[in-house]
Amino acid sequence: MLKNLNRVKNSKLHDLIVSAEEAASWIQDGMTLGLSGFTRAGDAKAVPLALVERAKKETFKVNIFTGASVGSDIDKLLSEAGIINKRLPFQADATMRKHINAGDHLFVDQHLSHTSELIRNGVLPTVDFAIVEAVSITEDGMIIPTTSVGNSATFVTHANNIVIEINVAQLEEFEGLHDVYEPAPQGENRKPIPVSSVGERIGTIGIPFDASKVKGIVFTKYTDSPSTIVPPDEETKEMADHLLAFLREEVKAGRLTEKLAPIQAGIGSVANAVLHGMIDSEFKNLEVYSEVLQDSVFDLIDAGKVDFASGCSITLSDEKMKQVFDNFDQYRDKLVLRPQEITNHPEVIRRLGLISINTALEFDIYGNVNSTHVCGTKMMNGIGGSGDFARNAKVAIFVTKSIAKGGNVSSIVPFVSHVDHTEHDVDVVVTEQGYADLRGLAPRERASLIINNCVHPMYRDQLSSYFVEALSRGGQTPHILEKAFSFHTKFAETGTMLDKEESLA
Amino acid sequence: MLKNLNRVKNSKLHDLIVSAEEAASWIQDGMTLGLSGFTRAGDAKAVPLALVERAKKETFKVNIFTGASVGSDIDKLLSEAGIINKRLPFQADATMRKHINAGDHLFVDQHLSHTSELIRNGVLPTVDFAIVEAVSITEDGMIIPTTSVGNSATFVTHANNIVIEINVAQLEEFEGLHDVYEPAPQGENRKPIPVSSVGERIGTIGIPFDASKVKGIVFTKYTDSPSTIVPPDEETKEMADHLLAFLREEVKAGRLTEKLAPIQAGIGSVANAVLHGMIDSEFKNLEVYSEVLQDSVFDLIDAGKVDFASGCSITLSDEKMKQVFDNFDQYRDKLVLRPQEITNHPEVIRRLGLISINTALEFDIYGNVNSTHVCGTKMMNGIGGSGDFARNAKVAIFVTKSIAKGGNVSSIVPFVSHVDHTEHDVDVVVTEQGYADLRGLAPRERASLIINNCVHPMYRDQLSSYFVEALSRGGQTPHILEKAFSFHTKFAETGTMLDKEESLA
Repeated sequence: MLKNLNRVKNSKLHDLIVSAEEAASWIQDGMTLGLSGFTRAGDAKAVPLALVERAKKETFKVNIFTGASVGSDIDKLLSEAGIINKRLPFQADATMRKHINAGDHLFVDQHLSHTSELIRNGVLPTVDFAIVEAVSITEDGMIIPTTSVGNSATFVTHANNIVIEINVAQLEEFEGLHDVYEPAPQGENRKPIPVSSVGERIGTIGIPFDASKVKGIVFTKYTDSPSTIVPPDEETKEMADHLLAFLREEVKAGRLTEKLAPIQAGIGSVANAVLHGMIDSEFKNLEVYSEVLQDSVFDLIDAGKVDFASGCSITLSDEKMKQVFDNFDQYRDKLVLRPQEITNHPEVIRRLGLISINTALEFDIYGNVNSTHVCGTKMMNGIGGSGDFARNAKVAIFVTKSIAKGGNVSSIVPFVSHVDHTEHDVDVVVTEQGYADLRGLAPRERASLIINNCVHPMYRDQLSSYFVEALSRGGQTPHILEKAFSFHTKFAETGTMLDKEESLA
Repeated sequence: MLKNLNRVKNSKLHDLIVSAEEAASWIQDGMTLGLSGFTRAGDAKAVPLALVERAKKETFKVNIFTGASVGSDIDKLLSEAGIINKRLPFQADATMRKHINAGDHLFVDQHLSHTSELIRNGVLPTVDFAIVEAVSITEDGMIIPTTSVGNSATFVTHANNIVIEINVAQLEEFEGLHDVYEPAPQGENRKPIPVSSVGERIGTIGIPFDASKVKGIVFTKYTDSPSTIVPPDEETKEMADHLLAFLREEVKAGRLTEKLAPIQAGIGSVANAVLHGMIDSEFKNLEVYSEVLQDSVFDLIDAGKVDFASGCSITLSDEKMKQVFDNFDQYRDKLVLRPQEITNHPEVIRRLGLISINTALEFDIYGNVNSTHVCGTKMMNGIGGSGDFARNAKVAIFVTKSIAKGGNVSSIVPFVSHVDHTEHDVDVVVTEQGYADLRGLAPRERASLIINNCVHPMYRDQLSSYFVEALSRGGQTPHILEKAFSFHTKFAETGTMLDKEESLA
């Protein structure tokens, strides 16, 4: 391991340099760890991996708090090692998902802007060890994060002990990329969060810390895991076209200009494809105020379409990582990384008036959205920041393909099997079939529009029948409760949501 | 009608004084009206009532936008007259409710902080006539509202025409009570909303307006409808005790002081009773940052418990109205009324760190809350501000009696029949049985706690059985979808949610 002491500019800290194994040995059964990491970027790697090694010989459990999902298979390995008691606020690992759904460990699915308040207010268990990845420590005592900020500042400020992973594989040139701001406790000491434009800087270039809490500094050399984005396909391209059509209507109506409004796009292939669709559009001088900055954001910067991008992490494919990080000076003045409390803060989202684009697992005929639970029970990833954005955005858009599993699943159902975003928070839904603009519509109006515009033709009659029968019972939001989950139960029993007659037709 | 011209201090406007009938005659089929009024307080009365009269001889329909619910039977009469096309964002009238659920007219149930953004952004139809109640018009051109502010400022600013109802039954002394602030459009011109403490004033004492848009001024003399609050009963007192016990635990844990945090309490008898419970508590120097200021807030002021109350309206019983308004100088410096966009703004709610107390219709074993739809279909009142507060509060509390309809309905069900507040937004649930503090808990943990602490004993086994069976299927949020609404469907079929064996036992 290359111990590049220049990365720790405050030389008083040099004595604290230890191996990952030693740092991992300090962690005791029942402790709570606050790990850096947001959407596979900037995660603490060496100490968690050493902890997994330790678990081969010892029995213990810890709570794992992070920014969001982490890479380097850390969630997989922690889960397999059986050392997790509670995990929050987000994950996106296939193995961990299995363990969560089997009840092997607990998972608390939180709005990504909420975790830091809960820690600050002493509601969650005290963080025993903040373990955060850094490119360097400055002479005046600041941790310079790597490719994400996440909840690291909150962890560092409120933890009893701090371990810093200096990752020499991450660019020292990231110094100056970040803008770290931690709000005061709620109440009269808290001031407005002064972000009034996408690129505005309000904080410090790194995370200030109490040097007496630093227990160890570990040198590492691991690259971030590349993103797992699938390239756009025919259907995601169609969705992008529908979304662009909607945006054009907004411009025509005078509600947006060709600059649009700052864009947030959730992680995932669909949102990525939708952003990609903007490259060849007439829209220009765009700004991004998002959580994760994916390939498409940099493609838009490269295409001269995006002037500035504010995010919480940079999560790229292998190829794009090489391009961006090898030429970082070209991007530096167009980027800022902020804590997730600031990227996702209702105050800032509402002030800036974002266009928010997130992925739905399923939505219902009245516009309620399920982002998290497969068939109402099994956790996929978590709500992430979608709630922070959808509730407060100027336009909250949810996208999904109209069918899944070769047509055996309709993504539009009578009643979503889990509600993450209510009818009050969903403005526009988009599938490859079309879009439905639900703003200002009553539930009965929404149902007709969704069925006509978004549902796959193979499910249109089935959903229409449900709606017509429900209408006969009346109500603000007509439903037949005994049939509300009939699509899901039919799928569980027969492997398809499609009515038998329909399948034969 | 007493035309007290002193109430219109800008004498250039005196020529515009007309009868309510004449003002009502200007309204044309298809128009959108923005009426003042929030929780039965400060509603425009004369012109809407004249419009109802006109409907006896003419056929027309209009959209009715308000702050929230209105009094003086206006919603009832408008509904009965059959002249509503669309109504938003809230209502609480028994007759209107019937018409909504029958599909006679459309109702859009919105977060109370959202309507003004939608109007400002041109998403909702343009308001043709803003019709707002005032105590006076100042010489320098401001409308001084009466007992509520609601959406009046937004309506006045964005409407094509303005009609002002000068209500001489409302105290001229209200001048100085209000603090009117309208945010700039979303984007770079919008600045932080500078409310950093409950009593901070940030705006003007009245609503500025474009005099050229004023089409008419109508003199009226109607008192507000009194509140319909039911006095505390044994069960609401028990709920108040549980809530106080929770707050004491928070103080013990160092998360709150005896000043607590600014309190928001939703309208309704339960929330009112809970506030009443604070009169004899040790808590003191309390502050209220709420929507509606009910009897209990003034009782707390009278008891020296509340130092300051910020609201959007003052809605009192007949008796309390007399006491407060006859002695208004005693209360003046402890009160401010703000637009609902500011009382309910996520930015301010989160900054101040409120304790938010709202009423649930039902909640489920995982902590999702239904605030609006009886048996998933029939609208009760609307979500009101509960979403604005619950999502952003420091502590989001929902209260409800554990059973209703003589025990035939359990307010705790396997799966709520409509979701207004998701598991991500609900911190504490309280019934007369006890409270469950859900913060930081995974769904499986929440279910046990809710069943043990909040469910009525007559339903405990039935909900436990559901949970145990659901656990056997696994998942982050275990459910048996085919039985998820079994409580509701059983009630629809048999008149009780109770299992037969249980009822016999």
